[in-house]
Amino acid sequence: MSDKKIGGAGLRGQSAGETALCTVGQTGSGLTYRGFDIKELAEKATFEEVAYLLLKGKLPNQAELDAYIAKLKSLRGLPAALKSVLEQVPKDAHPMDVMRTGASMLGNLETEESFDEQQDATDRLVAVLPSIICYWYRFTHEGVRIETETDDDSVGAHFLHLLRGEAPSKLHADVMNVSLILYAEHEFNASTFTARVCASTLSDIHSCVTGAIGSLRGPLHGGANEAAMEMIEDWASPEEAEREMMGKLERKEKIMGFGHAIYRTSDPRNAIIKHWSEKLAKDVGDTVLYPVSVRCEEVMWREKKLFCNADFFHASAYHFMGIPTKLFTPIFVCSRVTGWAAHVFEQRANNRIIRPSADYTGPEKSEWVPIEQRD
Amino acid sequence: MSDKKIGGAGLRGQSAGETALCTVGQTGSGLTYRGFDIKELAEKATFEEVAYLLLKGKLPNQAELDAYIAKLKSLRGLPAALKSVLEQVPKDAHPMDVMRTGASMLGNLETEESFDEQQDATDRLVAVLPSIICYWYRFTHEGVRIETETDDDSVGAHFLHLLRGEAPSKLHADVMNVSLILYAEHEFNASTFTARVCASTLSDIHSCVTGAIGSLRGPLHGGANEAAMEMIEDWASPEEAEREMMGKLERKEKIMGFGHAIYRTSDPRNAIIKHWSEKLAKDVGDTVLYPVSVRCEEVMWREKKLFCNADFFHASAYHFMGIPTKLFTPIFVCSRVTGWAAHVFEQRANNRIIRPSADYTGPEKSEWVPIEQRD
Repeated sequence: MSDKKIGGAGLRGQSAGETALCTVGQTGSGLTYRGFDIKELAEKATFEEVAYLLLKGKLPNQAELDAYIAKLKSLRGLPAALKSVLEQVPKDAHPMDVMRTGASMLGNLETEESFDEQQDATDRLVAVLPSIICYWYRFTHEGVRIETETDDDSVGAHFLHLLRGEAPSKLHADVMNVSLILYAEHEFNASTFTARVCASTLSDIHSCVTGAIGSLRGPLHGGANEAAMEMIEDWASPEEAEREMMGKLERKEKIMGFGHAIYRTSDPRNAIIKHWSEKLAKDVGDTVLYPVSVRCEEVMWREKKLFCNADFFHASAYHFMGIPTKLFTPIFVCSRVTGWAAHVFEQRANNRIIRPSADYTGPEKSEWVPIEQRD
Repeated sequence: MSDKKIGGAGLRGQSAGETALCTVGQTGSGLTYRGFDIKELAEKATFEEVAYLLLKGKLPNQAELDAYIAKLKSLRGLPAALKSVLEQVPKDAHPMDVMRTGASMLGNLETEESFDEQQDATDRLVAVLPSIICYWYRFTHEGVRIETETDDDSVGAHFLHLLRGEAPSKLHADVMNVSLILYAEHEFNASTFTARVCASTLSDIHSCVTGAIGSLRGPLHGGANEAAMEMIEDWASPEEAEREMMGKLERKEKIMGFGHAIYRTSDPRNAIIKHWSEKLAKDVGDTVLYPVSVRCEEVMWREKKLFCNADFFHASAYHFMGIPTKLFTPIFVCSRVTGWAAHVFEQRANNRIIRPSADYTGPEKSEWVPIEQRD
């Protein structure tokens, strides 16, 4: 059925649609959201401004931003039925399965009945996803039923507050803010593309986000920062890190947190999060994890010309803030939901169902054999 | 980032990978599963044989089929935590949201820890999805907590048994069998493609199936048989049907159940399910719905050269068996899960992450304006 045979699998380099949201790896600007360079956004913006930019198409003025923040703050509570569901999920569940199930259950309780509700449904998701993961985490790991409505202005501070039971320091809130900005949007990556395929059937936003969470769960997509953490936390010195890295390279083991499907020479998000990881290392008096991370970066560049992507220094940064490794990818969800939703809005505004063809490799014609004559 | 500009949106006619599972609309054979013509399968096979064929690559011999059926029968029970979750879902929820949440929750309770478990995890899903939807339906609509383990040999009879509380007639079991065969697989349709995109991140099978359910929920994909039912059930005679259809065509209203993205002259599944709908009409003594359906088919062909697709006569067939309209698409899930899983296996066996590019239509460079100077 395919009219054109496409070289290379995975639709690499093939356009699957249009977007005004993001450029990745274009000359002269590594990553832009609606034309804004990621470096400038990470330096000057709040995550809530970036979410507004992605979802509503422009930077908010002060009154608009205040109203948006107030709205998000009002939407952090969990319905009783959703709490009950989260309490049924075991402690040893995969946290991304918890996110996926939480988003799906919300769709049963607060169904998006028409696309007129897409902005409201998205605001609710942005506000409540941190509540979902932290409620489950603290219930199953600490045996407490937390109150998920806090007075923190930012999504990042809200998340840390729920996780710890107290408002975070300004430094920690600032790091979360930058981290959420860096992860918010990345063009037609696999989870976003999942959301767009789902949106192209004119399904509801909870289906789109639920599906996207499922794709982000895959180790080739989200989870690289968790894998990086699990690697570096075992090493006691830069020398040990170098020795172990060289061994891994020799054994051709996959090393997570380096290189990228699109970027060729660097990931523009790396320098930003590395800077914040260094600040946090000083703050906690670290003399191991940050130097180990820097040595890993040097070795991979020297040996393989592979650069750190956004995930690598996120590992140490989150760790310095005391975030359990298993919650790294759920934080990614709390950020990327803004990009996913913005892509869903775009897909809906100019839709054709995404239904590619396949190259058939099976038998041309199979002969039916009665069951008693089969091998 | 796009190397080639592709004409037409939605990846139509573009190959997104290889499959040995299915051909759709190729000359000389409308629809084949692993080379077997759908007409032959609908006439000679059981759904369980077809599921085996799709998932394991060959038709089973008698011993293999017996073992497979016995295994499916042993996997129909719902874990207590999943029952609790289903009881939290309100009566007025969208049944596809229930399916999506049920599949997602199962992933928390019985996580696929490695791809070695993919066959077992799929058998479990095939066996338990009818239990999920019927447990929720009868709990919320009739206030009963049903026992989901029945002794019926087939998935179709099991579904009807749970829905009604008693084993179905042979005719009804036969119709369900054919229906499940017809819906089992259809190449790179949007829900299957969703499952493959998710699988390409190496995510787990529950994420793939959960995402696929979300895409099938969309009115451009699943749900056409429900929409057809809602249209035809209002009409008391073929004459009224013709009058109303002509009015709809004049007003250019969308009429569901006709035409297809890939098929050009007919949907090979239509004649098959139409035949069974006619049998059921005789069985129940219908003199309205079946003649109305036939007239709709005649009018659409005469006026628009549009043929009935698989969904149109499914509407009357399911209705004659007393199946509530809102459960039509969940039955589709109970069947298509076999095709989804078979595609996930294929994707995993020869994987590259599905990550297309996009044509950028946004601003080239946006200037940061301090918030106090914004409009």
